[in-house]
Amino acid sequence: MLTGIYAPIPTPFAADGEIGWEELKKNLAWWGATPLAGLVVAGTNGEAAYLEGAEKERLVACVREGTPAEKKVVAGTGCESTRETIALSRTVAKAGADAVLVLNPYYFRGGMTKEVLQKHYFTVAESSPVPVIIYNMPRNTGFNMDSDLLISLSRHPNITGLKDSSGNIVQISEVVAQAGDSFAVFAGSANFLLPSLLMGAAGGTLALANIMPRECVKIYDLFKAGRLEEARNVQLRVLEVNAAVTSRWGVPGLKAALDLMGRYGGPPRSPLLPLPAGLREELKKILAGVDLL
Amino acid sequence: MLTGIYAPIPTPFAADGEIGWEELKKNLAWWGATPLAGLVVAGTNGEAAYLEGAEKERLVACVREGTPAEKKVVAGTGCESTRETIALSRTVAKAGADAVLVLNPYYFRGGMTKEVLQKHYFTVAESSPVPVIIYNMPRNTGFNMDSDLLISLSRHPNITGLKDSSGNIVQISEVVAQAGDSFAVFAGSANFLLPSLLMGAAGGTLALANIMPRECVKIYDLFKAGRLEEARNVQLRVLEVNAAVTSRWGVPGLKAALDLMGRYGGPPRSPLLPLPAGLREELKKILAGVDLL
Amino acid sequence: MLTGIYAPIPTPFAADGEIGWEELKKNLAWWGATPLAGLVVAGTNGEAAYLEGAEKERLVACVREGTPAEKKVVAGTGCESTRETIALSRTVAKAGADAVLVLNPYYFRGGMTKEVLQKHYFTVAESSPVPVIIYNMPRNTGFNMDSDLLISLSRHPNITGLKDSSGNIVQISEVVAQAGDSFAVFAGSANFLLPSLLMGAAGGTLALANIMPRECVKIYDLFKAGRLEEARNVQLRVLEVNAAVTSRWGVPGLKAALDLMGRYGGPPRSPLLPLPAGLREELKKILAGVDLL
Amino acid sequence: MLTGIYAPIPTPFAADGEIGWEELKKNLAWWGATPLAGLVVAGTNGEAAYLEGAEKERLVACVREGTPAEKKVVAGTGCESTRETIALSRTVAKAGADAVLVLNPYYFRGGMTKEVLQKHYFTVAESSPVPVIIYNMPRNTGFNMDSDLLISLSRHPNITGLKDSSGNIVQISEVVAQAGDSFAVFAGSANFLLPSLLMGAAGGTLALANIMPRECVKIYDLFKAGRLEEARNVQLRVLEVNAAVTSRWGVPGLKAALDLMGRYGGPPRSPLLPLPAGLREELKKILAGVDLL
Repeated sequence: MLTGIYAPIPTPFAADGEIGWEELKKNLAWWGATPLAGLVVAGTNGEAAYLEGAEKERLVACVREGTPAEKKVVAGTGCESTRETIALSRTVAKAGADAVLVLNPYYFRGGMTKEVLQKHYFTVAESSPVPVIIYNMPRNTGFNMDSDLLISLSRHPNITGLKDSSGNIVQISEVVAQAGDSFAVFAGSANFLLPSLLMGAAGGTLALANIMPRECVKIYDLFKAGRLEEARNVQLRVLEVNAAVTSRWGVPGLKAALDLMGRYGGPPRSPLLPLPAGLREELKKILAGVDLL
Repeated sequence: MLTGIYAPIPTPFAADGEIGWEELKKNLAWWGATPLAGLVVAGTNGEAAYLEGAEKERLVACVREGTPAEKKVVAGTGCESTRETIALSRTVAKAGADAVLVLNPYYFRGGMTKEVLQKHYFTVAESSPVPVIIYNMPRNTGFNMDSDLLISLSRHPNITGLKDSSGNIVQISEVVAQAGDSFAVFAGSANFLLPSLLMGAAGGTLALANIMPRECVKIYDLFKAGRLEEARNVQLRVLEVNAAVTSRWGVPGLKAALDLMGRYGGPPRSPLLPLPAGLREELKKILAGVDLL
Repeated sequence: MLTGIYAPIPTPFAADGEIGWEELKKNLAWWGATPLAGLVVAGTNGEAAYLEGAEKERLVACVREGTPAEKKVVAGTGCESTRETIALSRTVAKAGADAVLVLNPYYFRGGMTKEVLQKHYFTVAESSPVPVIIYNMPRNTGFNMDSDLLISLSRHPNITGLKDSSGNIVQISEVVAQAGDSFAVFAGSANFLLPSLLMGAAGGTLALANIMPRECVKIYDLFKAGRLEEARNVQLRVLEVNAAVTSRWGVPGLKAALDLMGRYGGPPRSPLLPLPAGLREELKKILAGVDLL
Repeated sequence: MLTGIYAPIPTPFAADGEIGWEELKKNLAWWGATPLAGLVVAGTNGEAAYLEGAEKERLVACVREGTPAEKKVVAGTGCESTRETIALSRTVAKAGADAVLVLNPYYFRGGMTKEVLQKHYFTVAESSPVPVIIYNMPRNTGFNMDSDLLISLSRHPNITGLKDSSGNIVQISEVVAQAGDSFAVFAGSANFLLPSLLMGAAGGTLALANIMPRECVKIYDLFKAGRLEEARNVQLRVLEVNAAVTSRWGVPGLKAALDLMGRYGGPPRSPLLPLPAGLREELKKILAGVDLL
């Protein structure tokens, strides 16, 4: 069972839009030296929406190779169709993924009933050689998978966890309460990590962990050690910087932060645009405020 | 400064729609014997939307009279217009309210800018003889007052707290982090009480406290005593019953629960209808499940 | 049966927030000389949300007295509770209202089921001495009353029409198609007046009719005369100015427009604020563009 | 410039999920004998979300080959990334598409600012060998491209039209009013076809045209002939059946309707499920009501 703090890594692109493999390797070396439990490849922050299947496969292989063996590698494989999701899950499993993170189909949101999504996830789970982690991301998909559905999915033996980015602490509580101890719920953003842990989450998959891996792990470790007051102080301290690289400026913000810290962020793929210069200055101040520069 | 657990009491109506004063007094005697920190009159659960000003005034006087002196009485006074909000706040203060709970105006939601709401709340705060507690209730008003606005409002010396029913734990965290120690944030529903306390909330104003006052206070006390694991267990245990008397069946659910428990719930005012018989049976099972029958 | 173009008039307030009766009379003299079919008092643009019941009663009496007998006077009476809606409907009918415009209750939006709203409207219709016109205003109430509900309400003999401000032309079409010829559907905003007439609407209740009564009536008359191309040209010409006094700047925009045209707009009641000076300049240009200055 | 009525055809799948080429050809022969102006391949109803690029290419070639030369073939090519959208537009143009219908990127909806979408569409338009038609589909993408953005896009010489499925007649009016005569606006659903034509739309791209091509064309022809009353009667008559194959039951409803009419609908691709038997019976009655059985 997966636990702890994961970084959903961004995919580095060169100016021509192609993947920057050397830049990726350098970043991997850095993340590999942190106490992170693992990395997520081709998730939202990896701009999975802009990657082709073959690119995802190669990314997983590259990340697996460049990451210490004790760290897990999870690959995002949710596609709109069941068949493409299955095919990709098999491919990345062969390429070294320890688990797959499966975003729900959402284009036909009016048709994504409980029955439809159950059948989809169960079919994927039965076909995937590695465990399936559900990915609930209402801000991007436009709808929420509710507790009732999530709990029903948790009954499948090959569906072993959930990344919930809804930020709905009640929903997280309800899933924890009813899904059983062997089901791992992950907070999908650092700004609700500590309350999620309190309610029983197994860890977090956090954009912020890309730039502040040690602080994110610290919240986790302090909580596990029962040092709540200290955990809360770290949690409150990272709220603003977390917003900057998630809800406020998204992937362009996260990539700009990496650049400002001397790592490689680079440009996002079109249509996303790099963070404008003015906002980059604002971001700089926010990063300085948490001693990241 | 207010702290602890408050019950936003329902207003008992007789079959003809008039307020049932005797029934209210009996309920007050019961709540008065619990460890609740206080009661909220004419809030959402009090069907304030269906009460006239004179009724609210008389309700506050009756509740103050029927409630032990050590318990606080808070009165809901938010109206659409600033002038009516001020007038009502003065009236209930005279009638014995220790503080007023002020829901934001919302009919012209497109016009409720930060500037408009700041001026409204500051004007009310300057005119109110008792402290003002902001009431954020997006599910009913149709829009959320965000952290930025709430924090700016918290700077006013006569605005001393917030009841946040959004359930957004990140927003609650942000307000706690920046509003200062003398500003009391209350969880607006029992289903996110414990995580709110963890992040620094001063208490809760909880529909559930009407029917499970001791359990709600227990979560608070266990948390204060550092007995987190036990606090979490109580928190997880009340999720379903809390949903039944809030998001799921609302005021009709809460009133039916009181009736089933041998207290007086009675019918809501029209247009709300009593909980249908079939759902009442379902509610009965939920209440039995938490030993309330 | 009501037909044609109505102006939902703003309520003039003096600087101290009290109703400006003399200013109202002057405006009435102006509107009385236009080809408008009637006026609506205490609607959204009348800031009904900020008026007390006694004020609404006096407004209706004043408007009835100051308006030519051949023009109809409709009064907004929708309150949250059924009893208050009935009481107000009776009061304004005595004061001279030809019909009442009844906004649905909306605070407990989760509880406003089809059954609840049917019972509410039927009870009001049975108690009102004058015909009831349903008022659907999702932008302000936060939810839409759908075709199915509206059609069911249209079956009641004392519910004779609908003001639909949703702008949903399909919903308007569905209601027209199924509600029968004696049910009058009114477009709730000038920007979808012509398509609504095409689909069978009986007229419009239009904020824009307060400042451009003749142009609004012209769209109606040209349509009735089968001069579609000309009707469309007028319709397209008023889109921008209509947005300025509705969705864009709301009541403050409408009042500022009246002021700029030499009528009395005056300030809105708090918490609404007058249109800021910068936007007033912008509005001036828009009004000049349609020859209103 | 494109005008008239288009059918966005469904993609026929065999029981194993593969494209049914023979079934497609039979359907094409049928649609080819109708007065439709053209067909749209790989749109929403074509389950583009579940098709691979190579399948889309082959579909376009097959449809072009099986469709009379005087009818246009439009291909859906909107992908999340700009580069994939361009590549696919080039591919389908070579395969015979007369124009491309480009849905906006939407996964990163928070980042899809006016600037981002302008750059995306302009880049695609400059690279596409055939004209670009914008596709606005808020129900599926989760956000609306507003009039202001759409009008700015219409200025590009290779962006020649818009399919607007928002149903917002005001937005359609605004775009028509400001985009110029050479820009073709298409109603995106039959239920607002006639009002759209009235306000200046050039035609419609209508799921309903797959099963009622002649009636859809009739609305268009009657309108063009100035026979408004008759046009309205046809428009009102098709509302219910249109809802059945769009907002109510979506692609499964459309495919079931084709099956019931003796054409080939077949199953949708997973995760979508075929229309359940009970609803199929209900659909049967609706189809019978408009003489389609």
